[in-house]
Amino acid sequence: MQIAPEPVARLIEEFRRLPGIGPKTASRLTFFLVRGPAEQAVSLAEALRQLRERITFCSTCFNITEESPCPICRDEGRDRSIICVVEEPLDVLAIERTREYRGLYHVLHGAISPVDGIGPEDLRIRELIHRLRAEPAEEVILATNPSLEGEATAMYLHRQLVPLGVRVTHLARGLPVGGDLEYADEITLARALEGRREM
Amino acid sequence: MQIAPEPVARLIEEFRRLPGIGPKTASRLTFFLVRGPAEQAVSLAEALRQLRERITFCSTCFNITEESPCPICRDEGRDRSIICVVEEPLDVLAIERTREYRGLYHVLHGAISPVDGIGPEDLRIRELIHRLRAEPAEEVILATNPSLEGEATAMYLHRQLVPLGVRVTHLARGLPVGGDLEYADEITLARALEGRREM
Repeated sequence: MQIAPEPVARLIEEFRRLPGIGPKTASRLTFFLVRGPAEQAVSLAEALRQLRERITFCSTCFNITEESPCPICRDEGRDRSIICVVEEPLDVLAIERTREYRGLYHVLHGAISPVDGIGPEDLRIRELIHRLRAEPAEEVILATNPSLEGEATAMYLHRQLVPLGVRVTHLARGLPVGGDLEYADEITLARALEGRREM
Repeated sequence: MQIAPEPVARLIEEFRRLPGIGPKTASRLTFFLVRGPAEQAVSLAEALRQLRERITFCSTCFNITEESPCPICRDEGRDRSIICVVEEPLDVLAIERTREYRGLYHVLHGAISPVDGIGPEDLRIRELIHRLRAEPAEEVILATNPSLEGEATAMYLHRQLVPLGVRVTHLARGLPVGGDLEYADEITLARALEGRREM
C-alpha cells in the first residue's frame, strides 16, 4: 500500500491536531494546499510564524496585543470605572462588535473546571484582584460563558469581589434575539421568565 | 471598536481562504493557536513550508511525490498493464487503502467542468495518451468521481482511448456497502439494478 509522501502525511497530522479538524478535513486542506498556488501555503506559514512572534499579552487586562498595555487599556476615551471580565480574547472581540460597551476588560484565559483540573489559581483571578485594589472600579461585569464552568467561575469571582466593595453584575440570561420560543430549552426559558422586564 | 491585533486578523484571513473554513472556524483555530503551546503554530508553519519545498509531481503519473518517478511508478512489483485514471492524488490514497489494486495510476488533476472553465486541455489527458502510446497498457480503469463532471470526463476519455485499442472500464455503480436501500437515491438504485450480478 502506497501511503502519502512524508511532507503530506506530516501536514495532515498537524492539521488534525487543531480542534474540530478530523482526518478527512485534514486531508482535504492538505491536498487543497498541494494543488493550489504555491504562495498560499507559504503565506499561511508566514502568518503562523508572525502570530507567535508578534502577539503578547497585555500586562493589565491579559488580552492579546501587539504591545503591552493593549490599545483598550491605553485608550483615554474609555470608561475606566467598569471592567468586563471574560474567559477568552475572542469574547473581547464579540463584545466590541456590539459597540455597546466603552469600559475596560479583564481576560481570565479559561474558566474553573475541576474535571479538566483547572482551578482559580490557573486563571488571571489574582491579577484581577490586585488590579482592583490598585485602581478601584465602580462595577465589574462578569461576562463568563453561560455554561457550567462559566457560571462556577462567576460564582467564585462574585465571592472574591464583594469584599472589595465593587458592584458585581452579570450579563442577562434570556431568549436569544431572533430565536424561537418553542425551541428554547427549559433552563433558558425559566431564566427569561425570572428576568422578565416591564415594557 | 477594538479589532483583533494585525497578526491575529491576518491568520484568521489565511485560514478563511481554505475550503470549508468559515469566519467562526477561522477565529477558533487562530485563538486555539494563540493560547496553545508555542511549538504548535511553529510546527504547523514548518509542515506547510516543507510541503511546497519537498513535494513535486511524478513525471509519469502526475501523482504527488517526493521524487519523480514516484514510488508506485518505480515499483517493479506492480502490474504495468493496468492504469487507473483518477481526478486527484487523494483518490490514489483511497484506492491504495482498499489493498485490492496492484496496477499503476494516472492523476488528471481535476475533471472537465465547463461551468468552471475547465476543459480537457487543463487536465493531464494529453500526457495519458502520450503515455499509452509510448507504453501500451491492456486496460484503463476510469475512476473519476460519480459526479456530473467526473462522468463527463470519463465519457470524453472513453472516446479518446478507444482508438488506441485499450480496454476501457469504469468503477461499478451501486449501493454503498453498509448503506440503507430505502435511503439510496433513485439514480444510484437504478444503476444498482442495471448492474445486478449473478449470486
